[in-house]
Amino acid sequence: MRNIKITLEYDGTDYSGWQIQKNTPHTIQQVVEEALSKLNKKKVQITGAGRTDAGVHALGQVANFLLDIPIPIAKIPIALNTELPADIICKKAEEVPVNFHSRHHTRAKTYRYRILNDNFNSVFKRNFVYKVHKNLDIELMKKAAKMIIGKHDFAAFVAAGSSVTSTVREIYKLAIYKVDDNEIWIDVTGDGFLYNMVRIIAGTLIEAGKGKRTANNIKTTIENKNRKFAGITAPAQGLTLLEVFYK
Amino acid sequence: MRNIKITLEYDGTDYSGWQIQKNTPHTIQQVVEEALSKLNKKKVQITGAGRTDAGVHALGQVANFLLDIPIPIAKIPIALNTELPADIICKKAEEVPVNFHSRHHTRAKTYRYRILNDNFNSVFKRNFVYKVHKNLDIELMKKAAKMIIGKHDFAAFVAAGSSVTSTVREIYKLAIYKVDDNEIWIDVTGDGFLYNMVRIIAGTLIEAGKGKRTANNIKTTIENKNRKFAGITAPAQGLTLLEVFYK
Repeated sequence: MRNIKITLEYDGTDYSGWQIQKNTPHTIQQVVEEALSKLNKKKVQITGAGRTDAGVHALGQVANFLLDIPIPIAKIPIALNTELPADIICKKAEEVPVNFHSRHHTRAKTYRYRILNDNFNSVFKRNFVYKVHKNLDIELMKKAAKMIIGKHDFAAFVAAGSSVTSTVREIYKLAIYKVDDNEIWIDVTGDGFLYNMVRIIAGTLIEAGKGKRTANNIKTTIENKNRKFAGITAPAQGLTLLEVFYK
Repeated sequence: MRNIKITLEYDGTDYSGWQIQKNTPHTIQQVVEEALSKLNKKKVQITGAGRTDAGVHALGQVANFLLDIPIPIAKIPIALNTELPADIICKKAEEVPVNFHSRHHTRAKTYRYRILNDNFNSVFKRNFVYKVHKNLDIELMKKAAKMIIGKHDFAAFVAAGSSVTSTVREIYKLAIYKVDDNEIWIDVTGDGFLYNMVRIIAGTLIEAGKGKRTANNIKTTIENKNRKFAGITAPAQGLTLLEVFYK
């Protein structure tokens, strides 16, 4: 049996997120497992690098699984894509050491939050962006973003009810770009992310872009470690898992 | 009663095209008429600039209609969008002279055909592009495109069974761009287009990009005036009506 690492792209619009859960029939993990099991002619269980929420997308989600059949590695994406629905695509397959674990061995992840800053939504982008009506000041957002970079206790940036041992995380990079005239991208890379952390960062930076928060306010918000001082949780559909990095 | 001209953007994926037809329940015209009739509290009939096919999209479709209610012109898009589904958006409304007719007064139209030239499809773009696996040579496509520009009898570039008095049309502009590393756009502007003409032009230029047709072959194809010598009809989903121009 080989341990196979795959890279997946998906449109999360019609899914209840990545992880298989009771009473949620349509998850990405389940659909991929079913496709792989069909290919393998035997049940396959996969481990994903991260559990994306309902409506969240991926350009580079990573998963691994054990495969019985002797299919050439280069043929796996093509064979798998014939079994997968059109909103999930396998882009790459690599054989990895048997001890490789796509969640435990993660070194960093990059997420992109896409904002459509326009008076009207776009029928082509509507499932992949968060439309923000008011004209955002990207320079204010960049200033505020600088306060988030680095190692901090992100207790103010985690969804209420989340139970983790530590809320300290390191943000290596947080870049804000303007693309296509009316789109703003927040690209954030960190060693790990708390539940809803990227969406709360996005919501907070949007408030900064509206002039409702200063960079100094972001600093204080981090220091206060209280969810109620951070911004809104920006909607799931604007979020895409871009890349997962390994040791 | 005012004559109102509106500009519409739509994702044509889930529609049987623009025009209301017997036994096709879900057309864009019908959905827009229903939304307008609700707003107007009285039946509204609209005239579209062009009849886009099933699966074809629009960034700038134009339509006009007579409106009874005294709603301010600037409020029409907002009011209409609250009644429209998420895949149709009204971007603009203008009051026009009573004799304005959005189809008869058309001077020119621009269409875009989007090709995803990659080994894998994109989950985000899949409904708006035509995925062509083989690496297309954009320079060969540009050379071939030059033969199409100008006033020609496009009898070879019309779907079989179409009944029009003349198949002579003028192409003012045909530009081919590379965008996002793996996408090719064919932007074509002309005084009018025959049934499936843009999709047959796209299919023919794709064959040129694969090295299967020379620029000279395109010239001969036009001269032969026979559909069977032109390329395939590229799929509807890659086509978008970009803009309609008026006198």
